[in-house]
Amino acid sequence: MNAFTILLTGYSGAGKTTIAMELQKEFLRRSMPVELLDGDVIRKNLSFDLDFSRESRFSNAKRTGFLSGLLSRNGINVIVSMIAPYSECRDAIRHQVKNYKEVYVKCPIDICEKRDVKGLYQKVRDGRIEHFTGISDPYEVPICPDVVCKTNKETVVVSVAKILKNLGMQTMIRKEIAYPSLFYTDPEAS
Amino acid sequence: MNAFTILLTGYSGAGKTTIAMELQKEFLRRSMPVELLDGDVIRKNLSFDLDFSRESRFSNAKRTGFLSGLLSRNGINVIVSMIAPYSECRDAIRHQVKNYKEVYVKCPIDICEKRDVKGLYQKVRDGRIEHFTGISDPYEVPICPDVVCKTNKETVVVSVAKILKNLGMQTMIRKEIAYPSLFYTDPEAS
Repeated sequence: MNAFTILLTGYSGAGKTTIAMELQKEFLRRSMPVELLDGDVIRKNLSFDLDFSRESRFSNAKRTGFLSGLLSRNGINVIVSMIAPYSECRDAIRHQVKNYKEVYVKCPIDICEKRDVKGLYQKVRDGRIEHFTGISDPYEVPICPDVVCKTNKETVVVSVAKILKNLGMQTMIRKEIAYPSLFYTDPEAS
Repeated sequence: MNAFTILLTGYSGAGKTTIAMELQKEFLRRSMPVELLDGDVIRKNLSFDLDFSRESRFSNAKRTGFLSGLLSRNGINVIVSMIAPYSECRDAIRHQVKNYKEVYVKCPIDICEKRDVKGLYQKVRDGRIEHFTGISDPYEVPICPDVVCKTNKETVVVSVAKILKNLGMQTMIRKEIAYPSLFYTDPEAS
């Protein structure tokens, strides 16, 4: 009965939400119940009192873990998309669920900053945000993640396929999509 | 797909948790998925930062509503056992779920104090607790609850039967249990 709780951890702009949304689609495609708990949504609804200090991030993770535990023990798969920069944050989720999977969404900070999807890095450089992971706050790299998605080197399809494989869920993608590194060229590198 | 969210609201010691636990059993007996969100458990896991001020109670209710919404939209019935003394607290839950049911667990405050299951009323009288609903804090009586359980006049079985009836769930209890007021004598009254 215990469903998966998949934590996508990594820098802001690393591609967590993008992967999470595609992963969610794969669950829905298989008629598997799933909830996507996005860090921003959690902060808005559950942790509107918290800032981005170490303690607050830990509290936020504990609450998310509690929520994940309730959902997953009822058979709802949970995808958590959250920076979760400290190992204690990840552990707070891990300890409250049964089928925990840790996905490290890995991308060099300078590429994340170049992407700057939400314009947050610019705000950091302008001195308008403190406690920003990777710039003014540390990120403790996961020691033993179940999956590593290198989003500067692989496509979303590949990242999702790697996660599905780890979950033991059959992937239905073709080889040339699954291993596009043979064909993949970084547009920035040209 | 949207399951019920049943809020049991009333004074501390009114019998919310007792009814909630029996109601939970009725769901489980029918193999219907259910989660019991008890006020104390929510406070411990989700709202460890909050006190019992009006604002905090509202925040607590908002978080509980968010959680109830996630569970119920996935087909998990939710029983919330919480004082929820202000109508805005109840509304915060109501607005985040689809099939909301409000159960007013009604019992005169002096009987709740006599019961004093958790020893809280004694602490209030000793001046060790402030913001205590019914003593130093107000309780806004629900204007239009779906069910009223008068726990000083009816047994738990009756209270649960009334709720089940309101939910449209067939009850399987005998008439003499369902209407024990004919037989019920208050041991305190003798």
